[in-house]
Amino acid sequence: MNILDIIAKKRDGKELTKEEIKYFITKYTNNEITDYQASALVMAIYINGMNEREITDLTLEMAYSGDVLDLSSLGEVVDKHSTGGVGDKITIILMPIVASLGIPVAKMSGRGLGFTGGTVDKLESIPGYTTNVPVDKFIENVKRIGISLIGQTLNLAPADKKLYALRDTISCTDSIPLIASSIMSKKIASGANKIVIDVTCGSGAFMKNTYDAKELARVMTEIGRLAEKETVCIITDMNEPVGHAVGNTLEVIEAIDVLKGKEMPKDIKNIITELGANMLLLANKVKDIDEGKAKILENISNGKAYNKFLELVENQGGDITYIENTDKFEKAKYITPIIAKASGKVAKLDAYTIGKLSVYLGAGRMKKEDDIQKEVGFVFCKKVGDDVNEGDILGYIHSNDEEKTKEILKQEIFTIE
Amino acid sequence: MNILDIIAKKRDGKELTKEEIKYFITKYTNNEITDYQASALVMAIYINGMNEREITDLTLEMAYSGDVLDLSSLGEVVDKHSTGGVGDKITIILMPIVASLGIPVAKMSGRGLGFTGGTVDKLESIPGYTTNVPVDKFIENVKRIGISLIGQTLNLAPADKKLYALRDTISCTDSIPLIASSIMSKKIASGANKIVIDVTCGSGAFMKNTYDAKELARVMTEIGRLAEKETVCIITDMNEPVGHAVGNTLEVIEAIDVLKGKEMPKDIKNIITELGANMLLLANKVKDIDEGKAKILENISNGKAYNKFLELVENQGGDITYIENTDKFEKAKYITPIIAKASGKVAKLDAYTIGKLSVYLGAGRMKKEDDIQKEVGFVFCKKVGDDVNEGDILGYIHSNDEEKTKEILKQEIFTIE
Repeated sequence: MNILDIIAKKRDGKELTKEEIKYFITKYTNNEITDYQASALVMAIYINGMNEREITDLTLEMAYSGDVLDLSSLGEVVDKHSTGGVGDKITIILMPIVASLGIPVAKMSGRGLGFTGGTVDKLESIPGYTTNVPVDKFIENVKRIGISLIGQTLNLAPADKKLYALRDTISCTDSIPLIASSIMSKKIASGANKIVIDVTCGSGAFMKNTYDAKELARVMTEIGRLAEKETVCIITDMNEPVGHAVGNTLEVIEAIDVLKGKEMPKDIKNIITELGANMLLLANKVKDIDEGKAKILENISNGKAYNKFLELVENQGGDITYIENTDKFEKAKYITPIIAKASGKVAKLDAYTIGKLSVYLGAGRMKKEDDIQKEVGFVFCKKVGDDVNEGDILGYIHSNDEEKTKEILKQEIFTIE
Repeated sequence: MNILDIIAKKRDGKELTKEEIKYFITKYTNNEITDYQASALVMAIYINGMNEREITDLTLEMAYSGDVLDLSSLGEVVDKHSTGGVGDKITIILMPIVASLGIPVAKMSGRGLGFTGGTVDKLESIPGYTTNVPVDKFIENVKRIGISLIGQTLNLAPADKKLYALRDTISCTDSIPLIASSIMSKKIASGANKIVIDVTCGSGAFMKNTYDAKELARVMTEIGRLAEKETVCIITDMNEPVGHAVGNTLEVIEAIDVLKGKEMPKDIKNIITELGANMLLLANKVKDIDEGKAKILENISNGKAYNKFLELVENQGGDITYIENTDKFEKAKYITPIIAKASGKVAKLDAYTIGKLSVYLGAGRMKKEDDIQKEVGFVFCKKVGDDVNEGDILGYIHSNDEEKTKEILKQEIFTIE
């Protein structure tokens, strides 16, 4: 077997065997296959595609290319994943809820990059909260209190990391087989048996239209079936930011408010009930989706989810007085209202634009090495479909730089029609 | 303009502009575009193709990526090129003939690699013959005696060299747009105004079947038209070796015999008359192909071509006593006959097999750095279609290693049916 024959096969649109995919992934991870050879193969895969069997083999080879988290001692772990977006604090809200309903939550999350945020950055807004926990302690935590949310302390799916970085430099990011195998390889390496995936769709997501989102969902579900990791995909809207807050501390405060039982934005309610009910169903905790949705909302109102969150934060070394009183969180220097210049209905609050402006304010990174400012971002009072009158406050810009605030105010963030 | 957009365009099967092709070739030659980016683009070109306009722009950008030989002081130069093969000594025979008919011959040739031989290696079999000549002296030679055959002393088409080496490592060699632009870029960089190309076709050539050979011929002719370098392609058979001899010294001896007017093999006669007549026609030296063919044969029989060859060899520092008496050439240690084991007709004498066995004997290189043995190879007495009787001598193996001779004798070189 050699890489030239493997490249030639995919170049000619033929199906690669499991052994050929294994050969490529193993040798590429060990630097025995060069980047330019991998590049040619990736382009051939991009253009000629892969069938579900090939995608599944690619996923499994990448999943097992490095550390694989063994969560078998925890029983049936149902993992949750989102394909990324703007204002997406769903993990922070949903995981304590499902933990309070008896699903063990052992979740490693990532940091934000580009216009999408990351759960680890958000959790680190809580003073004292440690996301860097050794694996044995991480599992011990889950056994004791049922939940731990941390960063990626293992070398999970290094082949995927390498290929992902390469794809970025050769215009091969938006290939559904490659996206699907990348996501599923990381999930499988992080030890989940069953997976619920929030496939975000819209301007603030990788998938810009429903057609692609459905195809990605279909392929990931099929990989899950073939890899015996039952997978359910839920397609959610990412044309406007999720909820009201965008920015690390601001999103954590919104998540805490939801867990405390305050009235939540409709989109957050839809997403957490839909994803949560599917997680409960996969874990055999409920008999149908409706029962699952009811349980999700019930454990918010009875305070069990909030208590589980407090337990989580305390266990990770976080200062729970911030959770109890979110006024304690450090604020940005300038909190400036966005005023409606006309009356009408909000037609658009573009997630991609808000994501980019958040990075501009300092809430996100353009490069891995960049520092972030936890307290900056946006809080919106109005969302798409809401009625507004001229002079209404549409939201607030939280900024540490007056010039940047001015720049943002010049732009049309809300489209009112 | 950036490489990511250029890769994405060709990935999606779109046409690249002249500027985009220029950007890629310039930056790749300067190492500002990485090999893995070039690799992705090359694979996209391989799969999605290029139209004639794109191929011509690619050709011209590669041609002008390094030195370009200026032959304008020589008048109208008609170059000859072969896409390579086994036993191909046509350049050594034909160029002195056309020089003797008034076409200036200023030709830089390459060395052999893999199973195909190279004119420079063959010429260097002649003791004293120097192929390494400075450009000004090279042109001066052509002005004085009408011919100079040397090696590649200039940095011709470095972009092509880089891309060619890359293609070899990513299974992208056999793409007609890439082969056509590679050949034509080198021809244009070597200063020709008009070009006759021998498109070899068969087991011992890059093009294995007539369909591909015709397509390559069509594309190169079209590049020539668009680049204003009139190009004629002749498709010739390369299923069996050309002529009787394979191996550096052995081929030079065969070439000398032809120039001396000895009876030549039918295939050599066909090729030299066909190519030569087209060269004469392009140079406006004759009114039609038939007149051209007659002139080619005439200048062999009247000795003018042979005298031109002697002049060439002497001028390059070669010892012409070897030309006058080819028995002076050093012989291989073991010259062993190949005996017919049955009676019948020769059905096959496979060029590719002979090419590989010549390399095995030491006549060619597998890697650029390898040394070669000038005197080894094959001389065949019979060719495809000839009648043979059991016990006839079919040819001779010229070898410096008895074990290798034995190994070769075990194989069925001739298929007799």
